[in-house]
Amino acid sequence: MPFPRLSFALVSLAATAAALCMASASHAQAPQLPPPDATQPAATQLMEGFPPPPDKIVRLANILKYPNVRWAAQHLRELGPTATIWRGGGAPSALPAAARQLPDTLAFADDKGAPTTLADWQKATYTDGLLVLHQGRVVYERYHTGLQPQQPHVLWSMSKSLVGLLVTELIQEGAIDASARIARYLPELATSAWADATVQQALDMTTGVKYAEDFADPTSGVFQYLAAAGLQPARPGSNVAKSMAEHLPTVQKEGEHGTAFAYKSVDTEVLGWLLQRVTGKSYATLLSERIWSKLGAQEDAYVFADANGGQVTSVGVNATLRDLGRLGDMLRANGRFNGQQIVSPATVAELRKGADPAQFSKAPGTALRAGYSYHNQWWVPHDADSTLEAKGLMGQHLHINPAAELVVVKLSTHPVPNTAFTHALDRQAFAALARAVRAN
Amino acid sequence: MPFPRLSFALVSLAATAAALCMASASHAQAPQLPPPDATQPAATQLMEGFPPPPDKIVRLANILKYPNVRWAAQHLRELGPTATIWRGGGAPSALPAAARQLPDTLAFADDKGAPTTLADWQKATYTDGLLVLHQGRVVYERYHTGLQPQQPHVLWSMSKSLVGLLVTELIQEGAIDASARIARYLPELATSAWADATVQQALDMTTGVKYAEDFADPTSGVFQYLAAAGLQPARPGSNVAKSMAEHLPTVQKEGEHGTAFAYKSVDTEVLGWLLQRVTGKSYATLLSERIWSKLGAQEDAYVFADANGGQVTSVGVNATLRDLGRLGDMLRANGRFNGQQIVSPATVAELRKGADPAQFSKAPGTALRAGYSYHNQWWVPHDADSTLEAKGLMGQHLHINPAAELVVVKLSTHPVPNTAFTHALDRQAFAALARAVRAN
Repeated sequence: MPFPRLSFALVSLAATAAALCMASASHAQAPQLPPPDATQPAATQLMEGFPPPPDKIVRLANILKYPNVRWAAQHLRELGPTATIWRGGGAPSALPAAARQLPDTLAFADDKGAPTTLADWQKATYTDGLLVLHQGRVVYERYHTGLQPQQPHVLWSMSKSLVGLLVTELIQEGAIDASARIARYLPELATSAWADATVQQALDMTTGVKYAEDFADPTSGVFQYLAAAGLQPARPGSNVAKSMAEHLPTVQKEGEHGTAFAYKSVDTEVLGWLLQRVTGKSYATLLSERIWSKLGAQEDAYVFADANGGQVTSVGVNATLRDLGRLGDMLRANGRFNGQQIVSPATVAELRKGADPAQFSKAPGTALRAGYSYHNQWWVPHDADSTLEAKGLMGQHLHINPAAELVVVKLSTHPVPNTAFTHALDRQAFAALARAVRAN
Repeated sequence: MPFPRLSFALVSLAATAAALCMASASHAQAPQLPPPDATQPAATQLMEGFPPPPDKIVRLANILKYPNVRWAAQHLRELGPTATIWRGGGAPSALPAAARQLPDTLAFADDKGAPTTLADWQKATYTDGLLVLHQGRVVYERYHTGLQPQQPHVLWSMSKSLVGLLVTELIQEGAIDASARIARYLPELATSAWADATVQQALDMTTGVKYAEDFADPTSGVFQYLAAAGLQPARPGSNVAKSMAEHLPTVQKEGEHGTAFAYKSVDTEVLGWLLQRVTGKSYATLLSERIWSKLGAQEDAYVFADANGGQVTSVGVNATLRDLGRLGDMLRANGRFNGQQIVSPATVAELRKGADPAQFSKAPGTALRAGYSYHNQWWVPHDADSTLEAKGLMGQHLHINPAAELVVVKLSTHPVPNTAFTHALDRQAFAALARAVRAN
């Protein structure tokens, strides 16, 4: 079945549409989206055959050209250098199935009030895998688009929340001072934007940095960042650094620190660098020692590496659906999982606390997430259930609702990069899942 | 402690010296070799720090520059694209320790008749890890140079034996005809060296191909091959293919097929390609489904990928010491391990059969391995014990002695690329280990 080959231009258009729609969320005009089934790897036959035909070859240079990312999100390691986040030497922890499973037909109203189902929501939002846990037991688990249970999927900015988790824990342990200026830990940044920013300001993304996370603008800071990370080629003629450690010191200040929220992957990279400097351990080693091995993860995870062996902490982690379920359930249970306290209850409480929603709402582009704040690299809706969320480009979700004892992991490859585009619909689905598990 | 920075030129010199010595093995003049302790990662501090200093950064472009490979052999995945050889979802198979362990002081005479020990042999041959199994039980296990039990180590040409194992098994199953011309399976090779070569000739490396595996000559075919594989940069000004599937059809015939042995990585790449074409599965998937998951491997292994997602079957596999021990013990036990028949006894018998040592000995550079032959990508010494060996550049060894119920896995980073350089010494060590386990 023929379908239009979607260029990055179309994706950019969609992103722009999404951005334009932010001010009037409830009446968002959907851009023309490609059909979910026709863009999945089985239909596109990307990277099939030995060798694949030239027009079916996915490289880092073209992963953002839709639908290539639908294949690449499950195979990023095959395209570039990575470091293993070892699962540890023990047996995987139990992740038992509940006696009653949720049905695909679970019905709820979408954000326009129209009837939809759990199955339809997944298809409409280009889902690769969905896992729902209630009280630590699996009540729903589905894999689409060829994703296998053992296969790590790219997390994009959900990676940030792992950095935030580790930094928060090290603050609790006294190894990092949240109020200290970043240049105290990273003298290389003494003439950069972060010279006089505090660790807490980077954690909350309230630094003033000359940088835009705009996937619709090829000259945006995010593309210089991705080029330095090795995840995207540099624009022809541009003089981009080859690693994070070369790039970050060149990024300059703009405005004041601590006054406004602005979403920036580079803030997280600074924190990832700081984590490694303070501990003397690589990010992959820290995640393995402190999180993955203690969770009893089923599979190794991995993180993308730059050309100098630096690890891409802000967007580079890839992990399996089930291991993210374990992570989520640990945070639901105040840091306890697999028979041990993995992070301190104080760390989890700090993440859930959130920042100031009023200040957050002043930032451009936040209208679709009204009532939220961003704190220590986690999204906080400030609801009665103490919900905590990690989110990533193209529909990566870790939704943790402690009051409903609910954890949802959703990995997706939506053609609109900004996950805010489906935020209202996703909120309806998460609420429906909370109602369903409470009634189960 | 200062020590001379060894350039690739020195390594090349050593390789040349080794090659020159081949005619008079017993009087080989050792080139000036760098001190083993001073070249290990803990001493060189390569890739230490966040970021490492510029002169301590290892990239694929400089991994052959000694001592960089001592770090890179344990971290190849951090330098380029790779595909995972999944260990499977089950528990690792048992690899129990024997009641009596062999001592480091185990004494034997080296190839010059001088006394040495198990510990000294390891140091003298730049060993990263050594595992000895007797009757399937661990009698000796040591890690040096920072290698961890869970860490895959590059196998270089030991990878070839995995290709040979799978091809032999598929021949036994009737899926591949050993006497068929290669172009029957790979029409892309119809105008290449392999057009009228048989599968068996590639298996035994008796094809006539215009190609030299000469690490001392930067213009040698092996460097064009490594550039196409993505493992080494192309020489400036050269027009090298970017993938195996582009490179192999350009390699031309020289001489006659089936008349003489000549060691060639490209023969194996042809077989690796053929395996994937015949089965419709990637090499990593085949190794996972047919070998790693059935062995009950403890860790995932991985294989290097080229720029088009092709897998580098001839030199690109990386695996842990213990999982290679499991592989070796399976072959020792006629294909049986972990409670199941993993490859057929006929396959193992075929590998052990070897080729014609008289024909093998006519080939240049084989004097150091007198009495051997090369058959189905395995080294066969034609001894009374039915010994079978896999070998790789810089001292990778899988030594399987069924009569002594002995398996030895040795992973190394010797500055002299050609493992034949230490062949006589290694033979003394393997014989000493066989005597020791028989007496244990």
